[in-house]
Amino acid sequence: MSISEQYFPEEPTAPVVKTDTIPGPQGAQAIKTLGEVFDTRCTYFVADYYKSKGNYIVDVDGNTYLDLYCQVASIPLGYNNPALIETAKDPKTISNYVNRPALGNFAGNDFEEIQRELIKAAPKGQHLVWNALSGADANELAFKAVFYNYQAKKRGFNAPFSAEEESSCMENSAPGAPELAIMSFDHAFHGRLFATASVTRSKPIHKMDMPAFKWPKAQFPAYKYPLEANTEANSAEDDRCLAIVEEFFKTWHCPIAAVIVEPIQSEGGDNHASAKFFQGLRDITLKYEARLIIDEVQTGCGGTGLLWEHERYNITPPPDLVTFSKKMQSAGYFFHDPEFVPNFPYRQFNTWCGDPVRVILAGAITREIREKNILPQIKETGDYLFGKLESIQSKYPTWLQNLRGKGKACFIAWDTPSGDDRAKFLNAMKLNGVNMGGCAEVGVRLRPTLVFGKKHVDIFVERLDQVLSTL
Amino acid sequence: MSISEQYFPEEPTAPVVKTDTIPGPQGAQAIKTLGEVFDTRCTYFVADYYKSKGNYIVDVDGNTYLDLYCQVASIPLGYNNPALIETAKDPKTISNYVNRPALGNFAGNDFEEIQRELIKAAPKGQHLVWNALSGADANELAFKAVFYNYQAKKRGFNAPFSAEEESSCMENSAPGAPELAIMSFDHAFHGRLFATASVTRSKPIHKMDMPAFKWPKAQFPAYKYPLEANTEANSAEDDRCLAIVEEFFKTWHCPIAAVIVEPIQSEGGDNHASAKFFQGLRDITLKYEARLIIDEVQTGCGGTGLLWEHERYNITPPPDLVTFSKKMQSAGYFFHDPEFVPNFPYRQFNTWCGDPVRVILAGAITREIREKNILPQIKETGDYLFGKLESIQSKYPTWLQNLRGKGKACFIAWDTPSGDDRAKFLNAMKLNGVNMGGCAEVGVRLRPTLVFGKKHVDIFVERLDQVLSTL
Repeated sequence: MSISEQYFPEEPTAPVVKTDTIPGPQGAQAIKTLGEVFDTRCTYFVADYYKSKGNYIVDVDGNTYLDLYCQVASIPLGYNNPALIETAKDPKTISNYVNRPALGNFAGNDFEEIQRELIKAAPKGQHLVWNALSGADANELAFKAVFYNYQAKKRGFNAPFSAEEESSCMENSAPGAPELAIMSFDHAFHGRLFATASVTRSKPIHKMDMPAFKWPKAQFPAYKYPLEANTEANSAEDDRCLAIVEEFFKTWHCPIAAVIVEPIQSEGGDNHASAKFFQGLRDITLKYEARLIIDEVQTGCGGTGLLWEHERYNITPPPDLVTFSKKMQSAGYFFHDPEFVPNFPYRQFNTWCGDPVRVILAGAITREIREKNILPQIKETGDYLFGKLESIQSKYPTWLQNLRGKGKACFIAWDTPSGDDRAKFLNAMKLNGVNMGGCAEVGVRLRPTLVFGKKHVDIFVERLDQVLSTL
Repeated sequence: MSISEQYFPEEPTAPVVKTDTIPGPQGAQAIKTLGEVFDTRCTYFVADYYKSKGNYIVDVDGNTYLDLYCQVASIPLGYNNPALIETAKDPKTISNYVNRPALGNFAGNDFEEIQRELIKAAPKGQHLVWNALSGADANELAFKAVFYNYQAKKRGFNAPFSAEEESSCMENSAPGAPELAIMSFDHAFHGRLFATASVTRSKPIHKMDMPAFKWPKAQFPAYKYPLEANTEANSAEDDRCLAIVEEFFKTWHCPIAAVIVEPIQSEGGDNHASAKFFQGLRDITLKYEARLIIDEVQTGCGGTGLLWEHERYNITPPPDLVTFSKKMQSAGYFFHDPEFVPNFPYRQFNTWCGDPVRVILAGAITREIREKNILPQIKETGDYLFGKLESIQSKYPTWLQNLRGKGKACFIAWDTPSGDDRAKFLNAMKLNGVNMGGCAEVGVRLRPTLVFGKKHVDIFVERLDQVLSTL
């Protein structure tokens, strides 16, 4: 029995679309009244989560979609997963929900166990975690950890702040508020708060009109596909991009304290890079005494068949900080160097220090993944899916360009001919019962749950074939 | 029957401290092992939330404290409040916990009701809300709303971005990433992310080593107490501070898009200001076409006897944005101007757009406050408490300096002679069964729940008298 059958004996067996438009009449009405209290301009449809199950999301018109977008890549184990419903009802969850502790000052006697469960899921080489509330929050807290550490090393790890540092930081001036940079890559997405928007480089809409830090933007490799046929060109592309990174370290007007990079640039177009590129980054950061932050917000928690995608590249020594969110349903950063615990208390600190109910859920999710041995299954599903997509690609080569993600479970994407074509395609897929999403300007990305199986692949590919035959 | 007796028929009747030190032996052991996976340098004690009830928090040594700190001012209705436990078990909460929606793209059919319940608690004049995840997050999202609006007005509300804006913002440069400022006040606390740390001005530990935006810091009134005896001097202090605010608008090197201010500076020392000061701020922001953001993160949700403390000052027209968190157990900003909904979709946006389980809780909390008519009760408790504290003050005038918060329920503070004295005092209070917190350098702040009653006041004041008689 497949994992989805184990969890969801009553999962729908196929999509059903009852309306001619999406949203249908009920959905349109629901969007209208919701629009009185919420910005609904980005609403695709209003969902009925009480009726959604497993890999299927239901909307208020009664349409049932096979979901390959999953709340922007953030549903790990299917809708209404029974194991997670148990977690919701656990007295520990209820207590942490109604008595939300200020964890830094008054942690509960259940918190050590909660933290230890999360740490079991840490990437190799990491053994500590700091909790945050979203991917953007996780990245900003990682930046703080990096800056604290950078300055502490300069000043002497246990040296007190100077009087000049204390007074100048209150004026937002150096030396207390130093000019230090984080390097990121063209097309990167790391969040939309102010420091994270400064490293996000995917689209103007994410950044426009926000004051920003003057931080450097390097180039992320743009590979030619299929990879097997372009090894030499792609290796040269790695060299070109690494040279740009090193050049910034030599020439930027202020010290670069860290490089932040996604293992696969997701929002920016599912851009992959090689082990050589990631090891090169590690080597350069070591050479210039900067830190390496791996942003696993979208890639983490198993979607690529590995719990942490960067482990594929065996980066040595491991990255300094690894951030997570989305499918983890909690957020934060893993780390291994005790010097990332700041030299003085109350530096990496805030009232709540995370939300324990969400950390409990992250623990439950990763425990299920481990105990039900889910990763080999999603890996197998992905290999099966990629093979089918290669066939579809040979049938409709203009509609599936640069098919990518081979061997990375269902973390698969391709390019359509244009933004307009993509919109037409995604809408037709919805009308045929498949919910999907785009990335970058012309990309389509697949982000199903981890309990997506071969039977779901068959349904998806059949609908895909059907839709493409009409476009 | 008092509200605490209604909720908590089995609330403890008095504090019990069983150990000679805090933490006691079990607590010390719990901190030690928790310290292997979490930074415990700020841990006062490890709590047992399963045994805590109403106004009493229990630690793992079995000590039972009357809690006047309440998770840094963030427990509204007491520990294990039965109404909130019901909310935790509600199918709506469970669904939103296990199926966390990307609210901007795929809101659930329960979300409109969830939002409407929260909006019932909006300050007068506000009728919309945008959800966030913490007080800092709420403030940063408010800044984004302000900057978007500022530039949209300049460019024409529906005008597209120019090609130069699009390309420059990707480089973190003007005009796409404009130089715009938010003005805040000396001693303010608004959070510890990068933009919020730039407006936080309470202590170096909150800001040190973080790159910061060059934004102006005005002066918040420093009043003489008791207020009745110092009206003239305090009014002159308002004038002095308002003049500084206006001077910044005239002279700052870049446009100031908004002023952010707390109704009572809390972390910064429980500094109060007058209706005249707040109206003056409003007038100056209108004159210079800037926005007024009121940060109600610590003051909001009833702690001062009003649901929103700034309403005391009848600011006219009402502030543009009001941020909240802590006792609300959710976070975000209220607003009334539809132009704060950005001119284009996907600007004020992120994957989750808040956490609906926390918004559900905020709705439940504010519904309880309304239906149980809790605010007049906490106001009465506060008046009773302030009278008792005035007596204590006349007995120990050096230990209770600048007693403040009269008429503002239990949102009361005073100053001790020194930081060392305060530490000694707070520790002695804990050993006598009362959990309390400080603010600024020498302040003591009271932040009990909203179900703190006269019987709790009597116990607290008795212990206070006892402790002060020994110091």
